[in-house]
Amino acid sequence: MRVDGARLQQRMAALARIGRDPRGGVARLAYSDADREARALVTTWMREAGLDPSIDLAGNIIGRREGSDPKRAPLLFGSHVDSVPNGGDFDGPLGTLAAIEAAHTLADHAVTTRHPIEVVVWSNEEGGLYGSRAVGGQLPDTELQNVSASGKVVAEGIRFIGGDPSKLDRARRPPGSIAGYLELHIEQGQVLERAGIDIGIVLGIVAIYQWDVTVTGETNHSGTTPMDRRRDAVLAAARFVEAVNRMVTGEPGMQVGTVGRFDASPGAPNAIAGRVDCSLELRDLDPAVIDRLFARIEADAHRIGQDTGTSFAFSGRIATTPAPSDPRVRAAIAEAAASLGCSAVEMPSGAGHDAQSMAPLGPIGMIFIPSVGGVSHSPEEHSTPEAVLNGANVLLNAVIAVDRKLP
Amino acid sequence: MRVDGARLQQRMAALARIGRDPRGGVARLAYSDADREARALVTTWMREAGLDPSIDLAGNIIGRREGSDPKRAPLLFGSHVDSVPNGGDFDGPLGTLAAIEAAHTLADHAVTTRHPIEVVVWSNEEGGLYGSRAVGGQLPDTELQNVSASGKVVAEGIRFIGGDPSKLDRARRPPGSIAGYLELHIEQGQVLERAGIDIGIVLGIVAIYQWDVTVTGETNHSGTTPMDRRRDAVLAAARFVEAVNRMVTGEPGMQVGTVGRFDASPGAPNAIAGRVDCSLELRDLDPAVIDRLFARIEADAHRIGQDTGTSFAFSGRIATTPAPSDPRVRAAIAEAAASLGCSAVEMPSGAGHDAQSMAPLGPIGMIFIPSVGGVSHSPEEHSTPEAVLNGANVLLNAVIAVDRKLP
Repeated sequence: MRVDGARLQQRMAALARIGRDPRGGVARLAYSDADREARALVTTWMREAGLDPSIDLAGNIIGRREGSDPKRAPLLFGSHVDSVPNGGDFDGPLGTLAAIEAAHTLADHAVTTRHPIEVVVWSNEEGGLYGSRAVGGQLPDTELQNVSASGKVVAEGIRFIGGDPSKLDRARRPPGSIAGYLELHIEQGQVLERAGIDIGIVLGIVAIYQWDVTVTGETNHSGTTPMDRRRDAVLAAARFVEAVNRMVTGEPGMQVGTVGRFDASPGAPNAIAGRVDCSLELRDLDPAVIDRLFARIEADAHRIGQDTGTSFAFSGRIATTPAPSDPRVRAAIAEAAASLGCSAVEMPSGAGHDAQSMAPLGPIGMIFIPSVGGVSHSPEEHSTPEAVLNGANVLLNAVIAVDRKLP
Repeated sequence: MRVDGARLQQRMAALARIGRDPRGGVARLAYSDADREARALVTTWMREAGLDPSIDLAGNIIGRREGSDPKRAPLLFGSHVDSVPNGGDFDGPLGTLAAIEAAHTLADHAVTTRHPIEVVVWSNEEGGLYGSRAVGGQLPDTELQNVSASGKVVAEGIRFIGGDPSKLDRARRPPGSIAGYLELHIEQGQVLERAGIDIGIVLGIVAIYQWDVTVTGETNHSGTTPMDRRRDAVLAAARFVEAVNRMVTGEPGMQVGTVGRFDASPGAPNAIAGRVDCSLELRDLDPAVIDRLFARIEADAHRIGQDTGTSFAFSGRIATTPAPSDPRVRAAIAEAAASLGCSAVEMPSGAGHDAQSMAPLGPIGMIFIPSVGGVSHSPEEHSTPEAVLNGANVLLNAVIAVDRKLP
């Protein structure tokens, strides 16, 4: 079975016109007028696809169609339509419109699934998976007071799009209440493009650990302090950066490690820096890999400290749990890709997605398609029409396979 | 001949009481009320020392006593009394009061030098050697509009302390117009203290070269960009920092190299930095050493750029000329130290001093005494009374020797 590629492309083009950013790209910030306009448009397409749309208490749009077996839990698939400022046309819209298209194609072919299907448009993904976390039971009340990118406080934003923040606990779904969750998304990296592979079968969404790292040396005069008398925090932190890179690349695997922040104090050309504040981030599907890498990095940092007369302090900042995908869902995606003649490879998702919020509720799976140049969160974000069509067809056929396979 | 150590200590204590900083230490910022009060006090001590004080057009105080040979150019020695905010009691006052004490001792012993002697209190040393550069002909008019640490524009400040910025060119002295210049100063480093040596015979004031270094990579998602696909400016700059350290320490000599500024952009824990702005500073007595080191560092930076997919750009920012001391003056200092039983070692001055402004006008020399812990520009700045006495006695006897030796 194949989706209607022309209909999908028309809808992507129509959605991309909502919330054009004057600087380029789109700005459909969660809870903005553009967000609400996009959600309204998508809702009409859900109806055309034979879905019955409603808005849950967290502001997620759920387009439901009953299955043949009323006792079964629903099979969910979807993504989001909100964007970052100055964002692109694929991150979110692809997965959302391909999900509607898959449902539409099932309706066109008068296929009734065993499970009820629910096409989901998650609210405020870009702000931090707010809608899906509310459903997954991972959204603390305190976060409702955060200010979103649109300027609205989250609670006010949820109300703006039709939810009710005072009843958010009733948006929550318990573990076991979904038959499965599938999401199609652009890769946002260059792995598929460079390997010339059509489909990424996501092994799971990685765990993200972040630390604030403080390197303390001694501020001193750059002219009067001989090289062998220095306690230079920049030199020590530079060796730390190199050590992180060496440790992370020193073993096989897809783990990544990044020092993205690096502030030297006092930061003057004629002063040896007495302090560096930097970040350390490690990501992998397996927290044990992160723990092992961090232990080595920390030990090496202390050795660097001894060599340079400085000291390193690590303060944990973020530690998310990984969300592995389900082997049965991966197999369904692999089957779907093979049946369509698409090449496929298993890979982790280094970025976060709504799918991770669903992992505690039931088996999840994600499908990636190549991103041109690996660019995302940018007006230059692009996936070819062929890749989009491949992704939508794999999603459709994976939904059919998963509906058959999962209880 | 020996100075009166008690008188010198009393005067240092009295001067230290002017401009106490509420945060600790002193704040005799150039052109402030405290600066003017200190200058007035020092002027009275000049008179007690048999000197005839006047203020030149750049606001420097010149205390002159004629020599036995009216045809000879004057022999200058002195330092400054202005301080940084939150500064110490030795940087400037030591050299100034030891110079007055040396003149006083000569007067006490009824010694008439062959050369006229001029004890100089340079104005606004801490702001950037303003007074001495005006005399040395190295102060562009444009700098008169700079705002000094006291908040006064330099031109206004010069007027405030009795100079006349509109006639600054007449403060200038031509090359050959001074018989020599001597300055006693605290080391502001730990070389003498750690070696247990009494006196530093300064080989000269080093050349200072500074560059702004821009490292350009590619900002990317820290989760979706595999390690082997990154163009990480932080990693490249870290290797650059290590390379600078390796090059500078890789050959014998007193050269120093510092990366004191290091700013990563965008500077987020979850973004690979696309850009680092950092500084490079190299100091040595010999500009050829700096040139050679820089050529190696630059070549290594380009190699690092190739390895990491980044590029390095260097933009020259500061390049001062070195001010070597005169071998005859150094010999006079060495003789003086030896005659007093003081140990001595030759060393560069890694910090700038008014002496460097005098180098184009005649032979210069500088005497260093140990700084406890190498600390300066801080309330903790300290030199022991013994070190102060040693320094003043070496200055006195070096003046006598130089007066004998130099034409």
